[in-house]
Amino acid sequence: MLSEQRKDFLNKAIAAIYSRKFYAAYPEHPAPAIYGETADADGKAAFEAALSKPFTGLAQSSTQHGGDEVSPYTGESLGINYPLFTPAELVEKASAVKRSWGKATADERANVLLHSLELFKDNFFQIAYATMHTTGQAYMMSFQASGPHAADRALEAVAMGYEELNRFPATTEWEKPMGKYSITLNKSWRAVPKGVAVVIGCSTFPTWNTVPGLYASLITGNPTIVKPHPMAVLPIAIVVECIQKALLANGFSADICQLGTDVAAKPITKELIENPAVKLVDYTGGTTFGNYVESLAGKTTFTEKAGVNSIIIDSVDDLDAVLNNLAFSLSLYSGQMCTAPQNFFIKKEGIQTKDGIVSTSDFATRLANAVTALIDNPKAGPHIIGAIQNPATAARVQKAADLGAEIVLPTRELANPMFANARLAAPVIMKVSADKESLFSQELFGPIAFVIETNDTTHSVALAKEMALTHGAISCGAYTTSADVKEMITDEMAEAYTPVSFNLTGGIYVNQNATFSDFHVTGGNPAGNASFTNPEYVIKRFTWVGFREPAAPKS
Amino acid sequence: MLSEQRKDFLNKAIAAIYSRKFYAAYPEHPAPAIYGETADADGKAAFEAALSKPFTGLAQSSTQHGGDEVSPYTGESLGINYPLFTPAELVEKASAVKRSWGKATADERANVLLHSLELFKDNFFQIAYATMHTTGQAYMMSFQASGPHAADRALEAVAMGYEELNRFPATTEWEKPMGKYSITLNKSWRAVPKGVAVVIGCSTFPTWNTVPGLYASLITGNPTIVKPHPMAVLPIAIVVECIQKALLANGFSADICQLGTDVAAKPITKELIENPAVKLVDYTGGTTFGNYVESLAGKTTFTEKAGVNSIIIDSVDDLDAVLNNLAFSLSLYSGQMCTAPQNFFIKKEGIQTKDGIVSTSDFATRLANAVTALIDNPKAGPHIIGAIQNPATAARVQKAADLGAEIVLPTRELANPMFANARLAAPVIMKVSADKESLFSQELFGPIAFVIETNDTTHSVALAKEMALTHGAISCGAYTTSADVKEMITDEMAEAYTPVSFNLTGGIYVNQNATFSDFHVTGGNPAGNASFTNPEYVIKRFTWVGFREPAAPKS
Repeated sequence: MLSEQRKDFLNKAIAAIYSRKFYAAYPEHPAPAIYGETADADGKAAFEAALSKPFTGLAQSSTQHGGDEVSPYTGESLGINYPLFTPAELVEKASAVKRSWGKATADERANVLLHSLELFKDNFFQIAYATMHTTGQAYMMSFQASGPHAADRALEAVAMGYEELNRFPATTEWEKPMGKYSITLNKSWRAVPKGVAVVIGCSTFPTWNTVPGLYASLITGNPTIVKPHPMAVLPIAIVVECIQKALLANGFSADICQLGTDVAAKPITKELIENPAVKLVDYTGGTTFGNYVESLAGKTTFTEKAGVNSIIIDSVDDLDAVLNNLAFSLSLYSGQMCTAPQNFFIKKEGIQTKDGIVSTSDFATRLANAVTALIDNPKAGPHIIGAIQNPATAARVQKAADLGAEIVLPTRELANPMFANARLAAPVIMKVSADKESLFSQELFGPIAFVIETNDTTHSVALAKEMALTHGAISCGAYTTSADVKEMITDEMAEAYTPVSFNLTGGIYVNQNATFSDFHVTGGNPAGNASFTNPEYVIKRFTWVGFREPAAPKS
Repeated sequence: MLSEQRKDFLNKAIAAIYSRKFYAAYPEHPAPAIYGETADADGKAAFEAALSKPFTGLAQSSTQHGGDEVSPYTGESLGINYPLFTPAELVEKASAVKRSWGKATADERANVLLHSLELFKDNFFQIAYATMHTTGQAYMMSFQASGPHAADRALEAVAMGYEELNRFPATTEWEKPMGKYSITLNKSWRAVPKGVAVVIGCSTFPTWNTVPGLYASLITGNPTIVKPHPMAVLPIAIVVECIQKALLANGFSADICQLGTDVAAKPITKELIENPAVKLVDYTGGTTFGNYVESLAGKTTFTEKAGVNSIIIDSVDDLDAVLNNLAFSLSLYSGQMCTAPQNFFIKKEGIQTKDGIVSTSDFATRLANAVTALIDNPKAGPHIIGAIQNPATAARVQKAADLGAEIVLPTRELANPMFANARLAAPVIMKVSADKESLFSQELFGPIAFVIETNDTTHSVALAKEMALTHGAISCGAYTTSADVKEMITDEMAEAYTPVSFNLTGGIYVNQNATFSDFHVTGGNPAGNASFTNPEYVIKRFTWVGFREPAAPKS
């Protein structure tokens, strides 16, 4: 059962969800004082020891093995082979444990899942190196995003699920007065899981984007198959290993959480999720495949797809502070975050600042300078931009010059001082007028930005809203010193179901979403149909079913 | 704003939702002591005064009018004409009030909706007569189902919506410690409505099945269009009138809730719900149209379709008590409830009773006798069976003899002592073996029942489960004196997302679902994708959108 210590841990997370104040169950800084003097070295050693051999951590075995992973930093294959299974094998094993996991209590499931998070925490550093060498994230982001932030998101999903499972009484005595007598029924309810769940991972955030759906499906009683992106298996394989160990340690079958790896030469995703026993599908990735996932009849789906994110600049106090903030947002992980800004809308009369009006052209030039200063800073640049996960992203940056827009900041050669073969792409910034909508009304994934001149701020907002409603948006930044303009932007972007960060400067960025506080992806526009972690995110994974019977007459 | 009295009323409903104990905000008995000495006569007079003229209660006017309603009791047209509008007109008006209703606070909306329920209550008797003469329900059911029970369901939806809208703080100060300093953000969230809502009514329960979706969409801020069944407009037209009066009395536009009547010769439903501005669709009715509604891309839908409901009889204590209960369930409103039982599964070895084994044949005969005794009882029969809403239902009963099953109770002529022209259909009971699945694996809407002989109770349960998973089920009754069999039935029917009533005898029936306690339709099997009123039922009607901005430095 759920120990007092774990129950207390869970209750703190539930309280954070309800207060929406800052809360972090897992410290985000990889300091030796927090995680232990040798944690980093041990994690690195564990990562290196795992290379060029079969992955043996899973309680799953197969005669078939494969693996595609290549480090964006070294250009070399990781050489790790994972057991491969057919979709039918995975679904059959999941189905066999459906009832036992479904009938486990919320406390029993929470106990297993919190146990797994304790093991997950012990592997933060190994997962960090695994994330670096699959996604191309820099070390600090790899640690934070795949370790503590992911674990916080997983805990959030467990806490929200636990809360919903316990929201109504499991039993009640229902006594209806009928005048001279009463009808008394004993009623009970079960939160019945939907069925077999599949979580489809992505190549850029293999744990952060996977664990919310994984833990949400597990806490609500659904046996879950993780289908990682073939280029980013290791980080989530370690998480699945932790969950399987926790399941086994608590007397459950490891088949309740399976890793269903595939290789690019033989993808299994469609066959897997089209299996009739699969009722829940979580997906992070491109829009085309995401739309297909959403279209599947008889499945409950949770998607995060692409978006076109906007920055609306009306008026600012200190433009340099704004430029530094935006340059960071644009450069962070080379624009490979789903929350990275792409379109910067500025009215043609320019930006009001404390030092006077700044024209669109001057803004574009100063933004380019801020980006250059950031990525050329040897102490910061490489740690911010990381490397490029997918060669197609690097190619897209190279080809930006052919789009026909005015190039304000051309891409150029970059070098990483530690990894001579790292795949890199310096940001490109272009300037266009608002009527060139075909150029900027698509997601150009990677470090690619447009400065777009509009008629006025109302026009800027209308375009940002249209982009969000038509192509999706996961973030939006807005800068204004006017309360009226702020309210107008809030009203308009609310109707596009797009969260807005106003007037960010300093050490907080539009790209960042805080666990236990920000709802990541609203689910209300084409960027995705689900949100981390609102109540709907867990409720849709089970069904309330009621049972009732006349109570025995009272003596 | 929400008055103290209304707030208190709402809080009692919220408490009932959480306790799931018996609660009724609106007394279900039409006693003069409760509703006033003249309430019944006044309601009847108001109903009669409304006949054969235009319906003038709405704050909507049109040059086009029409109405199709015919009383199942008299066979005569009600002669009431309603204003008709094109789908584009309805959606345009709804869209124009979208932002004002969307930005109204939860308290403001709750105040309007509770006010409307007060007006609704004042019209319970008029609505009862309107329901009788459109649906064919008997007087008592017309009063209860369309009046207090419907108002309770509406209140439940308001209470659940209000609870979810207030679940998280509207604003918070989020302070993240960064070592030497903190980042402090002011965060706020809006529950942004999904868009224009349409609620499609049915002919048998025109208010009870419509008001949950109607009030759920309204409390969450969506302007809502009610599209009633053309044969059952008047009861819900009066409800819409009450809502419009409450809107106007509180300074809102009546366009926030419109009645969008159509006539059989010119249906508008498809064009209406396919309008891109329509984002929410509630539907009660047949499966084919319901599947079409669910298939609409870009809409959030809430459906209640058909089901094949089972009674599983393993063993009983007092068979006569069981038979009386089942005969009532089968006869009530002549089987025209979505919760009415159709398939009675009994193992071939017979039913264990306190008086020994009763064979399937004997059970069928005794059930037939119990039904006959009930409907031939002049004080009870007409008040239980009511009349037949749709001529197709009466025809289906007549044609049951052609199905090829053994007829245990043939249908026959019936007469209603008060209405010589009432459309009636006496129940038909057939007996078949379990291998005649093609006969009983479809909903035969109306007073039609099969007694089905199975190999054993496990077989009975397997068939009931298969019916529910394949064709949907909204209710299930089971009789067993064995705790093990009860647990087995619970496990199996839970996996078919079908609620089970065990061992009902006396004055409580499998057909009945209690507001504030039973989740009506689980949403988990093909009988429907939604449930009255679980949290999902309201949460899916809005989207949380967050806004954040650095807090001003503290002095």
